[in-house]
Amino acid sequence: MISGEVPNGDFPLLIRHLMPTANRSTVPGEIVDASGLRFTYPQFEERIARLAGALTACGVKPGDTVAVLDWDTHRYLECFYAIPSMGCVLMTVNVRLSRDQVRYTIDHSGATTVITHPDFLPLLTAGAPELNLKRIIVAGDAGEFEPPPGVEMAEYYAIAEAAAPEFDYPDLDERARATMFYTSGTTGNPKGVYYTHRQIFLHTFGVLTTLGTAPAQGRFDADDVYMPMTPLFHAHAWGMPYVATLLGTKQVYPGRYKTDVLLRLIQEEGVTFSHCVASVLRMLLDEVKVRQVDLSGKKMLIGGGALPVGLARSALDHGIDIFSGYGMSETCAVQTLNHLTATEVAAPLDEQLKLRTRPGRPILLCTVRTAAPDQTPTPAGEEGEIVFRSPWLTSGYWRDPDASDELWRGGWLHSGDIGKFDEDGALRITDRVKDVIKTGGEWLSSLLLESLISQVEGVTESAVIAMPDSRWGERPLALVVPSDGYELDVGTIRSALTEAAAAGVIPRYGVPEQIRIVDELAKTSVGKLDKKAIRARYVGQVK
Amino acid sequence: MISGEVPNGDFPLLIRHLMPTANRSTVPGEIVDASGLRFTYPQFEERIARLAGALTACGVKPGDTVAVLDWDTHRYLECFYAIPSMGCVLMTVNVRLSRDQVRYTIDHSGATTVITHPDFLPLLTAGAPELNLKRIIVAGDAGEFEPPPGVEMAEYYAIAEAAAPEFDYPDLDERARATMFYTSGTTGNPKGVYYTHRQIFLHTFGVLTTLGTAPAQGRFDADDVYMPMTPLFHAHAWGMPYVATLLGTKQVYPGRYKTDVLLRLIQEEGVTFSHCVASVLRMLLDEVKVRQVDLSGKKMLIGGGALPVGLARSALDHGIDIFSGYGMSETCAVQTLNHLTATEVAAPLDEQLKLRTRPGRPILLCTVRTAAPDQTPTPAGEEGEIVFRSPWLTSGYWRDPDASDELWRGGWLHSGDIGKFDEDGALRITDRVKDVIKTGGEWLSSLLLESLISQVEGVTESAVIAMPDSRWGERPLALVVPSDGYELDVGTIRSALTEAAAAGVIPRYGVPEQIRIVDELAKTSVGKLDKKAIRARYVGQVK
Repeated sequence: MISGEVPNGDFPLLIRHLMPTANRSTVPGEIVDASGLRFTYPQFEERIARLAGALTACGVKPGDTVAVLDWDTHRYLECFYAIPSMGCVLMTVNVRLSRDQVRYTIDHSGATTVITHPDFLPLLTAGAPELNLKRIIVAGDAGEFEPPPGVEMAEYYAIAEAAAPEFDYPDLDERARATMFYTSGTTGNPKGVYYTHRQIFLHTFGVLTTLGTAPAQGRFDADDVYMPMTPLFHAHAWGMPYVATLLGTKQVYPGRYKTDVLLRLIQEEGVTFSHCVASVLRMLLDEVKVRQVDLSGKKMLIGGGALPVGLARSALDHGIDIFSGYGMSETCAVQTLNHLTATEVAAPLDEQLKLRTRPGRPILLCTVRTAAPDQTPTPAGEEGEIVFRSPWLTSGYWRDPDASDELWRGGWLHSGDIGKFDEDGALRITDRVKDVIKTGGEWLSSLLLESLISQVEGVTESAVIAMPDSRWGERPLALVVPSDGYELDVGTIRSALTEAAAAGVIPRYGVPEQIRIVDELAKTSVGKLDKKAIRARYVGQVK
Repeated sequence: MISGEVPNGDFPLLIRHLMPTANRSTVPGEIVDASGLRFTYPQFEERIARLAGALTACGVKPGDTVAVLDWDTHRYLECFYAIPSMGCVLMTVNVRLSRDQVRYTIDHSGATTVITHPDFLPLLTAGAPELNLKRIIVAGDAGEFEPPPGVEMAEYYAIAEAAAPEFDYPDLDERARATMFYTSGTTGNPKGVYYTHRQIFLHTFGVLTTLGTAPAQGRFDADDVYMPMTPLFHAHAWGMPYVATLLGTKQVYPGRYKTDVLLRLIQEEGVTFSHCVASVLRMLLDEVKVRQVDLSGKKMLIGGGALPVGLARSALDHGIDIFSGYGMSETCAVQTLNHLTATEVAAPLDEQLKLRTRPGRPILLCTVRTAAPDQTPTPAGEEGEIVFRSPWLTSGYWRDPDASDELWRGGWLHSGDIGKFDEDGALRITDRVKDVIKTGGEWLSSLLLESLISQVEGVTESAVIAMPDSRWGERPLALVVPSDGYELDVGTIRSALTEAAAAGVIPRYGVPEQIRIVDELAKTSVGKLDKKAIRARYVGQVK
């Protein structure tokens, strides 16, 4: 280890430096909230200072954890900056979890202060587990809400208004914890992940350099208008609010997600760049059939799960510049992004489909490998578990050393996803380790089958799960949801898959014997297929 | 101070991580040398490892300083990576200094190993000051060269060839010193500045995000082809080789600068992005008159001094996407960049001129102020000394605590330049503190007068310096070099300046009484006007 020296004008990598007003007297962008509130970046900086001052006046101290329960509002963005910058830990609560899970995560995080939208007050009444709160700050009217004994109440706008528009932020170590949130795990209690100022700072630059230098499509620049359609509680909305703020672009915060509101904001505010999971995109495209909104040219990054080819085709038909990325709660957010080259973008849309649905290449500073069970890397074209090294991976699960050791075994962060690299260096995800169907000693990808089924006319979505089989170990069961008013026939699905097998896309043993038409499929709190619940329902097992 | 924690998978900010091959199996770009050598990025990584192995085998140890004297070759780029990554300090020698100054800087840096082009061997013979060298590594044939007693000799390609294509790089503290070089100061001995891995790492990301997200012009992306026309010894060629390498673009290294070679490489290799000082651009445009090369659409960043309006117009007439930046040896490199907005780029070329010749806005993470002599910031529109805070400023002058304290007085790095901010937040440089003409209690900008004179037909370049004046303190003296074969008349210059005064561009007292036509003007080793030498010649004073 060669020792270093702390230079004159040392500059710690802190979230409060991710601000365009730090070095510019004028920033053209504005921040727009679905409520109609609009403010400039200098006003935003003032709002952050007021919030930090207000929390301090309430008794919040550096080192405290502050939990936030809100829709995607301007307040959330203010919390993204004010809470870490005053030396506290921002805990973004997944409000789609069950009441008991929400209470579990707040309790486990050690939060003593909660900032909440009135909609979520019912989650915070007295009850089990008892929360160890000192204060609840509600944004608006608390109505009939009775805080638990000993808990103070305050109103967000009132205390911010009473605070000074400037705040003396403390010196912080860039490795101080800045944020945390809980993964909606498929088994057991949610697990907490956490990130330092330094990690979020470097993530912001890694994502921005990759998005900024994309040569042919999916580029993000200072003239873009940004709106999140991934909740801010979910991996900091993939870190994009920090990226957009640093760049000083116009930003739009849509509040509670309603497809009509989202489409209206896209149209009226001129949104050009957004991101979401596949299910949100599907709802949006369904709404476009009703409400004529031109989505052509909009850049839309899809992550948080596979982008089915059928859905990607539909998006391309609308002129959307759709592309994929990959990351997990444990990786701060982004690890790979898929950008097409100039040549690829010029290809017919059908040829672009398989490229646009890949998670793509590791972004700058991220090392991604596929590894065999013995942890040796697998070569391009061969499946393995996806493992990571990069500057923005969670150091572990909060207060769970055993799970942290398991996550970090061998010095790489383990994704639990199975994937392989194409020859051009782009990653494909073939399945979750837990979801892959192990049949006759081979791995059969549930995602690939789902993607093929999604391309059959009249299919909205599908799930393929493993059924125990005495001969083969496991066999696939396909569950298919038809589009509205569509009479779907199991034979059509089977023919399509048999054709795919004949064409060599899947092995012959990949055609499921069992295909069922169902009304709907269980989803997790973040809108992904809940394979655990689906298996419980249709197979009666928890794998 | 809130304490932090070192996470699992900690990732120090080291130069060796600024490599596209760190996370990609395929990188489309190649690295091209004017000698005809071409290699891929994986081969480049191998070459770096060989160089590190070869230096180690020669006895070079972590902590040693290795001085490099070379033209802009592929070897220099290899040294940019290998030397800091093995834990040594890369000292980039300004080979345009005098022999005694070159020897002074090598000696003062503490370098014990020198890597040199044969052209520079004469600088390294026995002589005063005696160099404390252990070894000289020459790239090619050393000819008749006799090394000083006790100094070992080796050949660059031979020792690299003998080394392994992999190297086990040591763990380094990101605040370890990585590079140093000497400023060609206007008074006294050259002064050493130095940068850590962390500073160069963050500079690379700061520049790349700013260049990548430029909305309307001057953008740098993965499809660009990069060639430096600022020497690599000069502030790491403004850090651009690290930027281009990280992005994995095609890069072209032109060797010794010859305008015909530069133009040939631009044409044959399809160079799209370059950077240089104004004098190199002027030579290039002169050569284009002889050799028809289409420069339209080429992105060219001008820095290291003012970009005269006349020269900018000529570049725009050639279709060059010309723009300006600002930084100094003491600021790693870039502090501001000028990017025009979409609206500004659509304006007539004449209107763009004043925008394209401004140094522009502070780039991400740089705070730039104009300060009054009492160090308070001056408002937009008012002149002051330009001072900096950013993550990549030299911590001081090497082994010169007094000059370091002076540089960093009040906690800001002092540029010695006078400037003011326009209302839109872009910086204009009005003069050097040392060059400004103090007349009648007012500051008169020598740069502004030079820029006005450069726009007169038949003028190649000009210098305006201060002459002592018993009544006004100082008065301007204008020295003007005519274009080849042009009969220039002092009256024409005076009329142009009188018109400018009538139009309010300069004050009435800004028209010099003394204007002289001269054959040439003294330049510094990096091609800027050497006002110190010019003053010495024409006024007989050193200011």
